[in-house]
Amino acid sequence: MSFTFHSQLNQLVADMATSYREHPITASFDPDLLPNRNRIIEIIHLVRELVFPGYFGRQNLPDATIEYHIGDLLIQIHEKLSDQVGRVLRYSVGNDPAFMYDINDKTEAIVTKFLGQLPKLREVLATDIQAAFEGDPAASDKSEIVFSYPGIFAIGIYRMAHELHLLAVPLIPRIMSEYAHSLTGIDIHAGARIGHSFFIDHGTGVVIGETTLIGNRVKIYHGVTLGALSTRGGQLLNGVKRHPTLLDDVTVYSGASILGGETIIGKEVIIGSNVFISKSVPDGARVTVKNPELVIRGRAPQEFKQELIFDWVI
Amino acid sequence: MSFTFHSQLNQLVADMATSYREHPITASFDPDLLPNRNRIIEIIHLVRELVFPGYFGRQNLPDATIEYHIGDLLIQIHEKLSDQVGRVLRYSVGNDPAFMYDINDKTEAIVTKFLGQLPKLREVLATDIQAAFEGDPAASDKSEIVFSYPGIFAIGIYRMAHELHLLAVPLIPRIMSEYAHSLTGIDIHAGARIGHSFFIDHGTGVVIGETTLIGNRVKIYHGVTLGALSTRGGQLLNGVKRHPTLLDDVTVYSGASILGGETIIGKEVIIGSNVFISKSVPDGARVTVKNPELVIRGRAPQEFKQELIFDWVI
Amino acid sequence: MSFTFHSQLNQLVADMATSYREHPITASFDPDLLPNRNRIIEIIHLVRELVFPGYFGRQNLPDATIEYHIGDLLIQIHEKLSDQVGRVLRYSVGNDPAFMYDINDKTEAIVTKFLGQLPKLREVLATDIQAAFEGDPAASDKSEIVFSYPGIFAIGIYRMAHELHLLAVPLIPRIMSEYAHSLTGIDIHAGARIGHSFFIDHGTGVVIGETTLIGNRVKIYHGVTLGALSTRGGQLLNGVKRHPTLLDDVTVYSGASILGGETIIGKEVIIGSNVFISKSVPDGARVTVKNPELVIRGRAPQEFKQELIFDWVI
Repeated sequence: MSFTFHSQLNQLVADMATSYREHPITASFDPDLLPNRNRIIEIIHLVRELVFPGYFGRQNLPDATIEYHIGDLLIQIHEKLSDQVGRVLRYSVGNDPAFMYDINDKTEAIVTKFLGQLPKLREVLATDIQAAFEGDPAASDKSEIVFSYPGIFAIGIYRMAHELHLLAVPLIPRIMSEYAHSLTGIDIHAGARIGHSFFIDHGTGVVIGETTLIGNRVKIYHGVTLGALSTRGGQLLNGVKRHPTLLDDVTVYSGASILGGETIIGKEVIIGSNVFISKSVPDGARVTVKNPELVIRGRAPQEFKQELIFDWVI
Repeated sequence: MSFTFHSQLNQLVADMATSYREHPITASFDPDLLPNRNRIIEIIHLVRELVFPGYFGRQNLPDATIEYHIGDLLIQIHEKLSDQVGRVLRYSVGNDPAFMYDINDKTEAIVTKFLGQLPKLREVLATDIQAAFEGDPAASDKSEIVFSYPGIFAIGIYRMAHELHLLAVPLIPRIMSEYAHSLTGIDIHAGARIGHSFFIDHGTGVVIGETTLIGNRVKIYHGVTLGALSTRGGQLLNGVKRHPTLLDDVTVYSGASILGGETIIGKEVIIGSNVFISKSVPDGARVTVKNPELVIRGRAPQEFKQELIFDWVI
Repeated sequence: MSFTFHSQLNQLVADMATSYREHPITASFDPDLLPNRNRIIEIIHLVRELVFPGYFGRQNLPDATIEYHIGDLLIQIHEKLSDQVGRVLRYSVGNDPAFMYDINDKTEAIVTKFLGQLPKLREVLATDIQAAFEGDPAASDKSEIVFSYPGIFAIGIYRMAHELHLLAVPLIPRIMSEYAHSLTGIDIHAGARIGHSFFIDHGTGVVIGETTLIGNRVKIYHGVTLGALSTRGGQLLNGVKRHPTLLDDVTVYSGASILGGETIIGKEVIIGSNVFISKSVPDGARVTVKNPELVIRGRAPQEFKQELIFDWVI
């Protein structure tokens, strides 16, 4: 350790300790009250191993002993998730001892309920994988989708986080969905409600807001925003339906924005690339941007007309 | 373990085992048939260490013993890649014993061929790094580009995955390119064909489809889609040329979409930001969006005219 | 090891060694001259642990012993950062022995100065977290923001990297900011200057260029580019102010691009979604795209008019 640094260390420590006291918003000294982000990520990977057996984690699974493998994973997930859920529930009541007994029971009820949902979650994910396979000409194989499609990764974590959100677990669902966001560029709020056979292709830049409703067999491309439209209310708007509704069999192409809590996109509607829309659309309609005129300079200076495009497969 | 959970564990295990049988799409019980994603990521990092010596992995490389270092890395890559390639080849023939002998030979031929391509791959990557340095005013140094540019990371993995794609290796190329996608937001399908001196700046949101052709010295900014345009055929379109062709020296600015298998962007063309195009463009042309009119409210309520912009450097 | 591979190994090694000599751009054999990316990422996480005590790393921090915890982290950061800064400074002078003594002093001065800035950095980050809480109706709690908001992660790393940039440290700031970029899709150059209470919502696809100036209480959504606009100069433009200035209290909605070094966005201006602008805007103005007309086909074939939208909360 150098002399310069050594002579200043006491001062640096004191300044930082003062900063902790003056700006408590960025410091937490309540032991056992905050969840642990790394543990939550471990839980995500254990659930993924349980949901897609043979793909992630242990791969050499003889069919005969599969029950032991399932039991072992369930016990691990139960233990780790109980610890984290307990922490966030205690955190939400401010560690008041009067609530502690209740919280242990509540934690147990939540975690057991969550584990009981996992077979249903597998069933829905199977429809999502099937939708990806049917919708993407570049998909050569369903294993390729399970292993590598970012849409499936993000939707899988969303479905997991959504179950915890429905069980009113604070903090953990958001930590889960932001983990998916960081690895895929797909930002699905755990509060959104999404039907089966959901397909997100490419995915980078997709944003699906907290109060969005999405039907079955909906297909979305990269860069799509399902967002809010409103005067600016910040925290006052917490809980208000402010994101759109997409009915069954809707397709939304890349870069489109659909905004507003009262905007309903009807069944089988196709929304074209880069459409920016804040009004409802009737069933069966196809919406496209009236061609923005292109100007071309060089060997062929001219305005450059293109036909309206209503169908894409990217 | 709590009483509630314990009393339900048998049921939870049985439900999950039933789910595995009913929804086999998301379960795999064939030992040794699936690749291992983590091993494939290790291979990527070993190849990167071999291709950029001194940058990643071991950094203290005396020139005199460099051959030992190269040999050691080649042996490691050979072993790990042979294991993974063997798995996916067996997987693709359904583990039929009649094919097993062939597969060992095929694996060996593929891996040796791949390793033999690595010096060529270094050569092409050197042109990509040079192109990044020449094209980006913010680049202070070529080491900065090797260490930190997401475009170089994604292009490097693409070039690796493309070699395996050319050798008809299933699954692994896609796992590689989705790994790059998750860390960079740049989604290049391993099937695309891309010339030398390729530069992607910033990169988040770039999508380059499976049948895209890109010439030499092409430069692309963030948010660019090189996509398909077609009636919706899903799996029927597998293998059909459905993404565009960009000839030499093309520049495509941020947010532009170029769509369609018959769309050819001529030499030295510049495509402006947010252009959405599905028609061919002759050599040397510059294409821009005819200014979408802006409306401005407040102290200066007025329509807000801007000049057409044909050149950017972001 | 198979016979085929064994018989070719010598040749593969020789070819690679030749490639190292012929393409030195992608090889580095100067021991101790290059920084180590993994060590720099460790430093980021240690600084984050110090700045947000109780959130990341050690979580069970009794208030009474906090000084020991701070001291221990400062000593670790000092040691690791001194090593990396020393390397890049030696690298920048080409390892000339004449400079070595100076470099040790310079390293010590830089690292001690950087550590002295950390309380100030905490203070500014507290304003950023407060801005996120006030601006986002979906935020339920400040802990949620610290734990999981990608904007806070990217801004935190930007503020750290910017301090090193101001101290003229080469390479390391860029490695830091590209690490944030890879995990968030938010690309903030360490050279940008950004005021307090800065909020980036969602964030994927945001690009903030090297010479951007941003005032206080500015709010930016995903897909926003603050970029350059110029004739193409490549390296010649290094250092020139080529990115825009945003004054206090500006809001920029998703997908907008603001370009050019002379473009000044006035106080309290709102820039609408997908606006593409390269001219200055006076204080208090609201700018929106004149509605691109939508064409709708199907049960209600018609042009589809929407009202101009000047306010969003996504």
